[in-house]
Amino acid sequence: MGDVKSKASLAAIPADECLTLLRQCKVGRLAVVSAGRPHVIPVNFAVDESGIVVFRTAEVAVANEAGLARVAFEVDALDVDREEGWSVVVHGMAREIGDAVDPESKRLLHLRVEPWARGSRDRWYKIVPDEITGRRLVHEGGRGD
Amino acid sequence: MGDVKSKASLAAIPADECLTLLRQCKVGRLAVVSAGRPHVIPVNFAVDESGIVVFRTAEVAVANEAGLARVAFEVDALDVDREEGWSVVVHGMAREIGDAVDPESKRLLHLRVEPWARGSRDRWYKIVPDEITGRRLVHEGGRGD
Repeated sequence: MGDVKSKASLAAIPADECLTLLRQCKVGRLAVVSAGRPHVIPVNFAVDESGIVVFRTAEVAVANEAGLARVAFEVDALDVDREEGWSVVVHGMAREIGDAVDPESKRLLHLRVEPWARGSRDRWYKIVPDEITGRRLVHEGGRGD
Repeated sequence: MGDVKSKASLAAIPADECLTLLRQCKVGRLAVVSAGRPHVIPVNFAVDESGIVVFRTAEVAVANEAGLARVAFEVDALDVDREEGWSVVVHGMAREIGDAVDPESKRLLHLRVEPWARGSRDRWYKIVPDEITGRRLVHEGGRGD
């Protein structure tokens, strides 16, 4: 019936492991709401010790006039052939990193996230997470990564 | 200065090529707005001849009470080491596929998108695109895929 594979089971990933997986990734997908509409773009990023995500983009207007926006940021490792893998999602507020006069901005700018594309109009943002959740899809006997 | 690589250039991908790339993928990231907040999840999917994206999920409430929601759906192929690749984003309305009494729903259900995870509470959705855009990041002499 076209459904000979065993189905994978979905399991929550503990918060500390979510953070470990997030740190292993270099690219994630950022979702923002602009004029009531969802947008999603891939961005490369870095994570500091406390779980703050730092990225740069010029592609979408991430933040409002106040330089602040609610975002969702997703990383994953998915095996299409095995139909298993994991995903981790950070929910939180994205805030533009300004002129780096404050110590935290200076520290985050030192993470040196370089945009892949040419162009100097990129803006720096940090995401301060208020929730990090993850799910793992595994077949029996496997770990899904 | 930690910046020895040449920077890639960003180029728009023509609409017909966006559709070809979309069809090559099996997993994308779906962004929805729920209670004013963005959410993003990976989903496996299929595409019909006209570019309608069909997927199943139980993980988030994609649609409102009317079974309809504005979504963004992203696929990509990104090479972290080379810092190049492409992404394609579909913007459109997601509508729950109901009891398949109409010919189009019957046709879309025949695409047989099987969810990777166990569980029968998944709901079927289709995305009717009103915009498909793509960008490719390439270094000189390369194509980024």
